Amino acid sequence: MRDADRRTIIAGLGAGLAVAASTACAAPRGRKIGYAIVGLGRYAELIMSKFAECDQSRLVALVSGTPEKLTRFGEKYGIPASHRYSYADFDRIRDNPDVDVVYVILPNALHAEYTVRAAKAGKHVMCEKPMAVSVAECRTMIAACRAAGRKLMIGYRSRFEPYNQLAIDLAKKGFVGPTRIITADHGFNAQPNQWRLDRKWSGGGSLMDIGIYSLNATRYLTGEDPVEVSAIESTDRSDPRFATVEDRISFLLRFPSGIEATCVSSYSSNHNMYRVTGTQGWIELEPATAYEGQAMRIRRDGRTEAQSVPVPKGQHAGQLDHFAGCILNGTDPLVPGEEGLADMRVIEAIYRSAREGRRITLG
Amino acid sequence: MRDADRRTIIAGLGAGLAVAASTACAAPRGRKIGYAIVGLGRYAELIMSKFAECDQSRLVALVSGTPEKLTRFGEKYGIPASHRYSYADFDRIRDNPDVDVVYVILPNALHAEYTVRAAKAGKHVMCEKPMAVSVAECRTMIAACRAAGRKLMIGYRSRFEPYNQLAIDLAKKGFVGPTRIITADHGFNAQPNQWRLDRKWSGGGSLMDIGIYSLNATRYLTGEDPVEVSAIESTDRSDPRFATVEDRISFLLRFPSGIEATCVSSYSSNHNMYRVTGTQGWIELEPATAYEGQAMRIRRDGRTEAQSVPVPKGQHAGQLDHFAGCILNGTDPLVPGEEGLADMRVIEAIYRSAREGRRITLG
Repeated sequence: MRDADRRTIIAGLGAGLAVAASTACAAPRGRKIGYAIVGLGRYAELIMSKFAECDQSRLVALVSGTPEKLTRFGEKYGIPASHRYSYADFDRIRDNPDVDVVYVILPNALHAEYTVRAAKAGKHVMCEKPMAVSVAECRTMIAACRAAGRKLMIGYRSRFEPYNQLAIDLAKKGFVGPTRIITADHGFNAQPNQWRLDRKWSGGGSLMDIGIYSLNATRYLTGEDPVEVSAIESTDRSDPRFATVEDRISFLLRFPSGIEATCVSSYSSNHNMYRVTGTQGWIELEPATAYEGQAMRIRRDGRTEAQSVPVPKGQHAGQLDHFAGCILNGTDPLVPGEEGLADMRVIEAIYRSAREGRRITLG
Repeated sequence: MRDADRRTIIAGLGAGLAVAASTACAAPRGRKIGYAIVGLGRYAELIMSKFAECDQSRLVALVSGTPEKLTRFGEKYGIPASHRYSYADFDRIRDNPDVDVVYVILPNALHAEYTVRAAKAGKHVMCEKPMAVSVAECRTMIAACRAAGRKLMIGYRSRFEPYNQLAIDLAKKGFVGPTRIITADHGFNAQPNQWRLDRKWSGGGSLMDIGIYSLNATRYLTGEDPVEVSAIESTDRSDPRFATVEDRISFLLRFPSGIEATCVSSYSSNHNMYRVTGTQGWIELEPATAYEGQAMRIRRDGRTEAQSVPVPKGQHAGQLDHFAGCILNGTDPLVPGEEGLADMRVIEAIYRSAREGRRITLG
């Protein structure tokens, strides 16, 4: 849709955006919170580039098992040798007062270990999603951070993305009537030979990596946790990519208010959208959870129109600054460990439903 | 999307459309097949108006329990009193040589009875979907028509609609790569006080009436029958509309080739779309199965574009003339009773899955 075609059909849109903006960026302050990045893979590379957009966050330390990466990124971002750690060295980070937060961007199976070690080192923890590879691990991580008196936040970046924030706000206000159905589809064509495709490191296939966006969206768009879960998996085990993890796993959710969600998770086709359908129309994002380029369409009163939203700050910087603000102000993060745990409970139920061929009821 | 924005991104589109056109309308012939319409409700009213577009079909008789309707529509369409029947009179239709086809547009629970009576009267039968209210009834109807040596076709009008025909053709050709996922959503806000909401007449709720479009689309877009079915129902039984039938019933299907489908069926929100996602992109119709106004978007090579298709003949007239052509030429209908039976088998599995909380396997 071209800019010339975009129209605003939302009455009182300003209010919604004000809410969005207040979550996305807080006022600059004197002190900046120092982040150590653990795991210097591709996503970490993106995150490191985003500190330049931040008001309250700065990159102060690096942790990697690859000396060449420590040197390369250390030089690129001006991180002195004293602030570069190997995994063996990692626990020494407790002695570095510049580090306030350890941001865990490791393969999923390592999230729990490094979150616990970071908490024990007295650091706050930001951990990528999926939070871990089991509910049990999530509980351990939450307990460790609580015991250490440190904050824990999960990297649900979409919560700091203005289109998603507006969709949540409109759904909550019943802009298209009370929500009845949510459809949420996420997937991509997985490239072979990566840790995501090795269950030992990933804990699972498309659901752990990309389907979690469908799941998490249904939860933040409803503000509820599902009470019924049903799933069907489809995996071609002769495809070398899927020797240990699932390809497609579609799932249905029923929420306490009666809302139903139908969700796609795929490692063999591209999907990135959700639609919230109420009694009077729908709100759609496509792409919904990409790094950028979100597009919204709203159908109401029989008309479908695109809806533009200003994006004052990228979602990655918004996420980093949000957690920094929580630490500076002593407030709770929007997406704490409990949020990651809630997703993981449903993920385990989805896998169990697909495996056992039955509907799983969640309390 | 405005006409100026529409583009053709389909190479070899002409071939696809030629296929579509050949199914939608055949060359006019001398003799026209005579239809009797049974049940003069709102949909029948629409159908009666469509004979004016037909080349091989004509309206010759009416059957209703309401004398006023027989008079009103009889006069409107020039049907003489001798060709107007009550339900008690219905079997006398055997003596009317002008009637080739009986088109059953009654409440679902009456489809089987009138199809069998029509076959026994020596008439070919067109029956609205859902074909009946059980697999057992579908089998009885097929057997009755076979025993009478008469043809049976189910009113799956979308098969005669050019956008749907092109979508089928493109999916079959792998225009966006082999199909991996289908999402199909259908629903509307049901008005109270109608036979659709009375299980005695409808046999079920949204699934029987509108969700069947989601189901049937997944079958015609794949050319396969699902082997696994899983469903979750959500019905507010305190809503007077849903005292005896379900509101929402979402379902998942897995097909022999591995394709997964996620489907919405709703009586409390508006949905009319499907999307076929392959490894390289997707083909979407929205609306997909409306009476008119279909719109197609195709995503391929990272671009999303609208796709126009000529509509030389409306789907209703196309359907009527197709069956007339089958009778004139002695060929089999595109959507025979077996097609209705195949849907009904899945519908029964969907209901059973929702009721019993387990995945149903179909042989």
